[in-house]
Amino acid sequence: MSGKPSIDFHFDLSSPYSYIASEWIEALAARHGRTVRWHAILLGVAFQAAELRSPVDYPIKRGYTLLDFDRSARFAGVPFTLPAKFPVPTQNAARVFWWLDERDPERAAAWARHCLRAYFTRGTVDLSNVEHLRALAVEFGLDAAEAERVWSDPAWKARLKNACDGAIAHGVFGAPFFVVDGEPFWGNDRRAQLERWLESGPF
Amino acid sequence: MSGKPSIDFHFDLSSPYSYIASEWIEALAARHGRTVRWHAILLGVAFQAAELRSPVDYPIKRGYTLLDFDRSARFAGVPFTLPAKFPVPTQNAARVFWWLDERDPERAAAWARHCLRAYFTRGTVDLSNVEHLRALAVEFGLDAAEAERVWSDPAWKARLKNACDGAIAHGVFGAPFFVVDGEPFWGNDRRAQLERWLESGPF
Repeated sequence: MSGKPSIDFHFDLSSPYSYIASEWIEALAARHGRTVRWHAILLGVAFQAAELRSPVDYPIKRGYTLLDFDRSARFAGVPFTLPAKFPVPTQNAARVFWWLDERDPERAAAWARHCLRAYFTRGTVDLSNVEHLRALAVEFGLDAAEAERVWSDPAWKARLKNACDGAIAHGVFGAPFFVVDGEPFWGNDRRAQLERWLESGPF
Repeated sequence: MSGKPSIDFHFDLSSPYSYIASEWIEALAARHGRTVRWHAILLGVAFQAAELRSPVDYPIKRGYTLLDFDRSARFAGVPFTLPAKFPVPTQNAARVFWWLDERDPERAAAWARHCLRAYFTRGTVDLSNVEHLRALAVEFGLDAAEAERVWSDPAWKARLKNACDGAIAHGVFGAPFFVVDGEPFWGNDRRAQLERWLESGPF
């Protein structure tokens, strides 16, 4: 491992731009000798704290935003299908993330990628549906009943809440939201600026 | 002239991202055999129609947004100084734009660049201040009294209103907002996607 600080990557499992970024952040970090610290958060909580709304909630922005999800995925070379049910609450999957994270952050990141890919490529997966989540857990090699115990457990509810509160306290108001060397980068579309920072530092 | 359709470029004279984009759009278009059709609009009118607010109006986003103005300008290699008075209403300068546009669209675009550069590099210029506008008009080779007659004239007020209404009717809800071959691109940060479109068409 290099001694360079890792990149904090805040994502929401129901955020298309978080999904797209999740597909390139590890390779980008590795090219520049960095690791990635994944943080599952709930964008709804952040939006509420900031009095923001999702771009798809504004009628005039909705059509453009849906077009931009698709085009931005193609631009990044990432497969994308708008889920039939979108957006959805993702607290259960996010609690499983934090439970895994306590044991093995890399396994937690793999779970996040598993959920994001299932939700944003299969079209019919609903991350708020308990049966769908149990099936995703089994595909991932978890015991479905154990996963369900985790997302019902007040301790893991509290862990997720702490993660959201901590992110908001650090100025996170959207996703994906990266912080590296104290510098914040918001959005899949800040990839080129993030890359320049990793290449040559402050600019 | 090539036979390729021009790029519609909607901008607001008080929008930092519009200013940054105004510095690269002509060269980008020319590299791909396109011309640029400039449209001065008032973002406040578009925001009102779309129930949107400026990102600097959200306390949690303000600090990040100001940082991002600066960083995005440096990333594009464009000089930038946040104006002491920001944002400001720009209807007077925009009316002069449309008055010039009727005679010579290239001269109107040059006026827009003159105003944007003065506002976003000198720091002390206020585009809502009548004395500042008169001075900018003289620098640009216009008669100050004539410029003032233009921005007070109901006909040019109506022309600007029509431009804003037309932009909103075409789905414009922010600035900069580009439309090329019927495809919309919102934001200075869609430059790379716009460039790919110009290079190789739909993707």
